[in-house]
Amino acid sequence: MKTEIISIGTELLLGEITDTNSAYIASQLPLLGLDLNFMSTVGDNQQRLIETLRQAWQRSDIIITTGGLGPTQDDITRESIAEFVGEEITIDHTLVQKFEELFRYYKIEMPPSNIKQAAVIPSAEIIQNPRGTAPGWWVERDNKIIITMPGPPREMQLMWTKEILPRLQQKIASAAIVSKTLKTFGLTEAEVDERANPFLSTKNPSLATYAKFDGIYLRITAKASTEVKAQELIAQRENDLRAILNDYIWGVDSDTVERIVGALLTERGLSLATMESYTGGFLANVITNAHESSKYFKGGLVAYADDSRISFGLSKQLISRYGIVSSQAAEAMATIAREKLGASMGISLTGVMGPEEIEGQPIGTIFIGLDDGQHKRSFSKNYPGNRLQVKQRAVTSALFELRKFLL
Amino acid sequence: MKTEIISIGTELLLGEITDTNSAYIASQLPLLGLDLNFMSTVGDNQQRLIETLRQAWQRSDIIITTGGLGPTQDDITRESIAEFVGEEITIDHTLVQKFEELFRYYKIEMPPSNIKQAAVIPSAEIIQNPRGTAPGWWVERDNKIIITMPGPPREMQLMWTKEILPRLQQKIASAAIVSKTLKTFGLTEAEVDERANPFLSTKNPSLATYAKFDGIYLRITAKASTEVKAQELIAQRENDLRAILNDYIWGVDSDTVERIVGALLTERGLSLATMESYTGGFLANVITNAHESSKYFKGGLVAYADDSRISFGLSKQLISRYGIVSSQAAEAMATIAREKLGASMGISLTGVMGPEEIEGQPIGTIFIGLDDGQHKRSFSKNYPGNRLQVKQRAVTSALFELRKFLL
Repeated sequence: MKTEIISIGTELLLGEITDTNSAYIASQLPLLGLDLNFMSTVGDNQQRLIETLRQAWQRSDIIITTGGLGPTQDDITRESIAEFVGEEITIDHTLVQKFEELFRYYKIEMPPSNIKQAAVIPSAEIIQNPRGTAPGWWVERDNKIIITMPGPPREMQLMWTKEILPRLQQKIASAAIVSKTLKTFGLTEAEVDERANPFLSTKNPSLATYAKFDGIYLRITAKASTEVKAQELIAQRENDLRAILNDYIWGVDSDTVERIVGALLTERGLSLATMESYTGGFLANVITNAHESSKYFKGGLVAYADDSRISFGLSKQLISRYGIVSSQAAEAMATIAREKLGASMGISLTGVMGPEEIEGQPIGTIFIGLDDGQHKRSFSKNYPGNRLQVKQRAVTSALFELRKFLL
Repeated sequence: MKTEIISIGTELLLGEITDTNSAYIASQLPLLGLDLNFMSTVGDNQQRLIETLRQAWQRSDIIITTGGLGPTQDDITRESIAEFVGEEITIDHTLVQKFEELFRYYKIEMPPSNIKQAAVIPSAEIIQNPRGTAPGWWVERDNKIIITMPGPPREMQLMWTKEILPRLQQKIASAAIVSKTLKTFGLTEAEVDERANPFLSTKNPSLATYAKFDGIYLRITAKASTEVKAQELIAQRENDLRAILNDYIWGVDSDTVERIVGALLTERGLSLATMESYTGGFLANVITNAHESSKYFKGGLVAYADDSRISFGLSKQLISRYGIVSSQAAEAMATIAREKLGASMGISLTGVMGPEEIEGQPIGTIFIGLDDGQHKRSFSKNYPGNRLQVKQRAVTSALFELRKFLL
């Protein structure tokens, strides 16, 4: 069934708020097998909302709105739907009583404007809002459904989970839809597309690519009469893709490179320490974004100023001979991290983040050092971008080198 | 003039990405005096994009699109616009040469699919993308403008600021519109709204509030026949606001707290070093996001595992008596940072980031330590949220405490 989302609120059109509700609802619809073709945003303007409802009604079966259910004059969602379906608004007095009790409980006087939130029309069923005084509506007419939910994300999400999702599941009871994401690193989006080309045009399972800062993702989506059958379709396509992209696939679904590296370190009983120059602690920070990092991460040294490098034990001669942006410095830093923090592995990162060149090296020049007590390695890279982009790419790249080293 | 925003990408309709581009552009339009009545999102589907363009063309003067400019088959924005305006696509060979040079510079072979990004139609002017290979289009026909920009926010925002905004300003040549943002920390949005209430309903200058991770922002926008006059209106309103919010205002426009703290340190001739436990280097990282940080930042210690804290010099007795999540540990860590790295000031951060409690303290408990060689201070805070949110709030809060200390 075709579904459409409408977000309502002038604050969205002024860019004061980013609309996260639409993305939340959008991510829920594939699980119900509902197709989403359009999302729209309108301000607190009755005529434009009705225009948008009319269009959605023509091309979709289910219309989901968020926002515009507050008690003020600006809030025009109920009035607009009533006018659109041509029904009269009445006040639900049981609901008014509930509001009054709620306000008494919080010892606040109920503003008369709140009565507006007890409005209802014949086609609408009132949906409870456990986190606020704005109830939702479930409107059914002419084989179409309009669902209205409040705008505040925590009210909307609870209403969705507790009230709307179960009703929709019961209503639809359709085919099972399953998806899986394979994550690659080391190829451009165009290169991934070229290799995966034969599978990009098939309909079931379908395949789509996404460029992210940690590589190119491939999302496989399959539809079947049961979840098991959909999973089978996914597994077959995953095999096809692994056959052509295996060297580049590093994870699936919610995997992150820091968690993958963490799992490898834990598996091998290793611990890790870092030493960084101009990435300023970002490498250590990303490593500790993994929940389990306290199992293997010892700590890190951030050597930003010249004298701090020397006080951490980097040799003055080495710096003056090769510079701090060099493979020699990177290897020595990995060793210092390992030894100072009593870790089995040391990883280092040094390079030029901008805005200026360092030691005559251009912005984006990176050296990564690794030392496991037996072998020392270093890798050099060059990334374009501004300070924050170079930082991000340097750290991601260092973690992928560590992963390769561990494998 | 009526403006409309269209976001393009199936990943948006699947809820894989939250659309932040629309909110960014929406927040820019009032500065140009442009009215925004609708925003829409469509997937990578040529027919539906054309349908959406047709509707926007009927009701708006300027259509701004983001996304769908990549090199893959999915990317259909150029093709859809060409079909919609009924023009033939050709390849701009100067642009192909530029791509080839760029790929040669990075020593990567250019995938043939990249040529697609050099597509152009007679009505379109190609807009440079300094951060990627997807150029934008500026299409003018029948007194309407279609502006297409790439989807990645960093590429889109730079293209907007450098290329699109100046062209729109020239095109519109209306009254001068100027805006200024005052940044506060320490009040909720409702509290700021209450204090600024008398100014929130005036039209010129207008005032809007925005909640951000580093506080509540107030944006003043003024319109006048000349820029000087608009600046005068802004200056008056700024005075009004400073009179009621001065203790909370820490910066304006593009100021960041790390840059404000950096300027204070430089002004006073001080240097800084950090020691962190569970924030894992995030504090040092944020400090070094300021371009000038090499002038005052010495470096940092990330003491993640128990033994690393002791090897950095934190006393075993102190830890066993007070715990690592304590004001005593925070103060001692600030001293260690200062002494070990030879800085005039030490700042420390320790606390519980989740997913589990530490030493019986709940997630979100934070201690900040400061030592300038004469005074030691510590502050305790409690922030709700998940691991990444607590990290962000802890670091922001530590920098605001350092700012207060320096003042």
